[in-house]
Amino acid sequence: MDTNHTPPVSLGAKAGKETVRRHNLSLVLRAVRDEGEATRAGIASRVGLTRAAVSSLVEQLIGSGFLSESGKTFSGQAGRPGTVLKMARTGPAGIGVEINIDYVSVCVVDLSGTDRVRLTEHIDNRGAPPAEVLARGARIAARTLESAAEQDLAPVGAELALPGLVSAGTVRQAPNLGWNRVPAEEHFARALARLRPGAGPLPVSSENEANLAALAELWFGGLGSPRTFLYLTGEIGVGGALVIDGELLRGAHGFAGEIGHVVVDPDGPLCRCGARGCLEQYAGQSALLRAAGMDPDAGVPGVTELARRARGGDATALEAVGRAGRMLGRVVSGAVNLFDPDAVVLGGIYRTLMPWLSPSVDRELTARVVSGLWPAGSGRLRASSSAGDAARGAAALVVRAVLADPSAYVSRA
Amino acid sequence: MDTNHTPPVSLGAKAGKETVRRHNLSLVLRAVRDEGEATRAGIASRVGLTRAAVSSLVEQLIGSGFLSESGKTFSGQAGRPGTVLKMARTGPAGIGVEINIDYVSVCVVDLSGTDRVRLTEHIDNRGAPPAEVLARGARIAARTLESAAEQDLAPVGAELALPGLVSAGTVRQAPNLGWNRVPAEEHFARALARLRPGAGPLPVSSENEANLAALAELWFGGLGSPRTFLYLTGEIGVGGALVIDGELLRGAHGFAGEIGHVVVDPDGPLCRCGARGCLEQYAGQSALLRAAGMDPDAGVPGVTELARRARGGDATALEAVGRAGRMLGRVVSGAVNLFDPDAVVLGGIYRTLMPWLSPSVDRELTARVVSGLWPAGSGRLRASSSAGDAARGAAALVVRAVLADPSAYVSRA
Repeated sequence: MDTNHTPPVSLGAKAGKETVRRHNLSLVLRAVRDEGEATRAGIASRVGLTRAAVSSLVEQLIGSGFLSESGKTFSGQAGRPGTVLKMARTGPAGIGVEINIDYVSVCVVDLSGTDRVRLTEHIDNRGAPPAEVLARGARIAARTLESAAEQDLAPVGAELALPGLVSAGTVRQAPNLGWNRVPAEEHFARALARLRPGAGPLPVSSENEANLAALAELWFGGLGSPRTFLYLTGEIGVGGALVIDGELLRGAHGFAGEIGHVVVDPDGPLCRCGARGCLEQYAGQSALLRAAGMDPDAGVPGVTELARRARGGDATALEAVGRAGRMLGRVVSGAVNLFDPDAVVLGGIYRTLMPWLSPSVDRELTARVVSGLWPAGSGRLRASSSAGDAARGAAALVVRAVLADPSAYVSRA
Repeated sequence: MDTNHTPPVSLGAKAGKETVRRHNLSLVLRAVRDEGEATRAGIASRVGLTRAAVSSLVEQLIGSGFLSESGKTFSGQAGRPGTVLKMARTGPAGIGVEINIDYVSVCVVDLSGTDRVRLTEHIDNRGAPPAEVLARGARIAARTLESAAEQDLAPVGAELALPGLVSAGTVRQAPNLGWNRVPAEEHFARALARLRPGAGPLPVSSENEANLAALAELWFGGLGSPRTFLYLTGEIGVGGALVIDGELLRGAHGFAGEIGHVVVDPDGPLCRCGARGCLEQYAGQSALLRAAGMDPDAGVPGVTELARRARGGDATALEAVGRAGRMLGRVVSGAVNLFDPDAVVLGGIYRTLMPWLSPSVDRELTARVVSGLWPAGSGRLRASSSAGDAARGAAALVVRAVLADPSAYVSRA
């Protein structure tokens, strides 16, 4: 990815040396990211380069706006005190744009992974033509970019988080939006370019929203987060993702994780995907609200009301959530038998409903996972962290590309 | 792994140079394995080492019995003709020991991956104490080792293929054998040592049998074999394995792939695992035979008879196989939605029943996999290759360890 702000260096003939320097720039930058604050001497000892080599790399990273000096000094070991370095709070950043069924959420994440700007609009995206929905997303992104610019943050790429099967820039299918073969990146990029006539084009890529939410959980879920887990997110649809030893499982065609369309009852209600009795028809937001005798289109406020009723002991609400939990538990136990994860993480509306949902999910897991591998009260069923969501995961994915190869974003000057 | 035949070299102080040489020995050996036949010059150009370096490595590999000269010469390029090298048909090998519910199958595979000795006994292993079953396996293995010795093959390690949850040398649970926490490697190794008082101990390791059958499919399934696939094997139980981009998915605890215990009907028949309505209760060998009105314990001859009846158009047989196919299809479609494989491969008794089983499995997949990702007649549902089975996969796993580090098996002489 490159932008008008930060054209990539051309490697030319000295590729051998340049390759090593590119690698080492990334190494140093990631060392500071991992430490939070670091001195040149500390980095040298951590990454195994000489102090002189690290100093040269650090100068380039400061000059290009990746690192800043905090003003503090630190004298830990022998030798003169070192100036403390940290990730720049300005300059290169990532923007994530989650276009979901009943909201759009955009966020800008800086190089340290901190969420710096967030703009969310609750808006029903069903019914409108795909190009219009993506233009709406671009308008919200453009406003977010204005806020970012005021903080001197310059995203180098945008990542779209989309509720469907995403491959090669195109949404193959997003049943709940009614999208089929929508060239999402192209629509979005064109609309955004029209809104920012002076600016150069921002590279756009895209990914399934549950996959990005799972990555956000992996990266920002805090210490002790599992590295191998099944992630489910309850929205109007039910999204899923599998993270194996810190890596997202994409599958042979990029479509892995579609747990919302695992069958619960082959003779069950017709699903938007065309099959019958999918999990989504039992544990999706609309199905849950309907089962509780509420308006299935009541959205997030409806889920909040459902949680309020459950907390108050309303029998209909408790039965609706308990039933959804049983169906979730059946499907999740199958997935656990297949994948043997460390943990199952529930996000989206399931976070809100966790106190009433998790007992029945856990009960099914204990009954159905083979060989007592899911003992009661294992604590391996957990709510997602509040830090993780698809928009942040998307923005962080852009930032990780920068950290993996800062040279590609370094100005030549 | 080491044996009395081939003690590993000690690395000592010159670890740097030795490490490079170890790596290069493996590189050269695997180049010959991949090519089948190769000259020193051909290897040098393939692996990017000098002709002199390759010659030195080849001499060591010949001297240690890994490579042999075929007698043929080959003059492809400029320069004098080169002697053709191939993998030795004698010397280091692997032995795989599959202890399944109603049979034990042992095979020895040579360095080229060829199945050289096979001994299978159809015998019911249910009911006997685990130590006795493993001693039985050791007796069959000892006989196989005698045959191997007559062919001058000397297995350097044994791999057990076991129908249950295997971790750290222990079978945590094998429901159809009634095993719980059985130290299988220890029992087997002790029994084998007693049978071969003169010989040094043979290192023993172990793995789930469906995992090893899937690896055999990956390695020996022939050109065009999928690299990302779901493997199911129908036996008395239903085993499963997931291969992702050529690597076995083991899961967080080594227990991934237990598709036989994914729930079909939460109120279905009680399974040996303790849960209700597992796939095994609908598509396992006994369930299938029972549904066809046959003796559920009729074993492989029973399955052959079932296939004969189905071929003859027997309505009860066809309905039994069709129903098992529908249940398989439901569970497999869920797994495909989760994991997005290139192919689904059916082994074990499903190979025999494929003509009557696959239409109903395929129909469920087409109906239930999201977004038309499993179009009718895709050809992505296939029978396993006849070349692949758990015993051969087990033996080949030992051989791969040799190929990965031949130095560890090279005699010092």
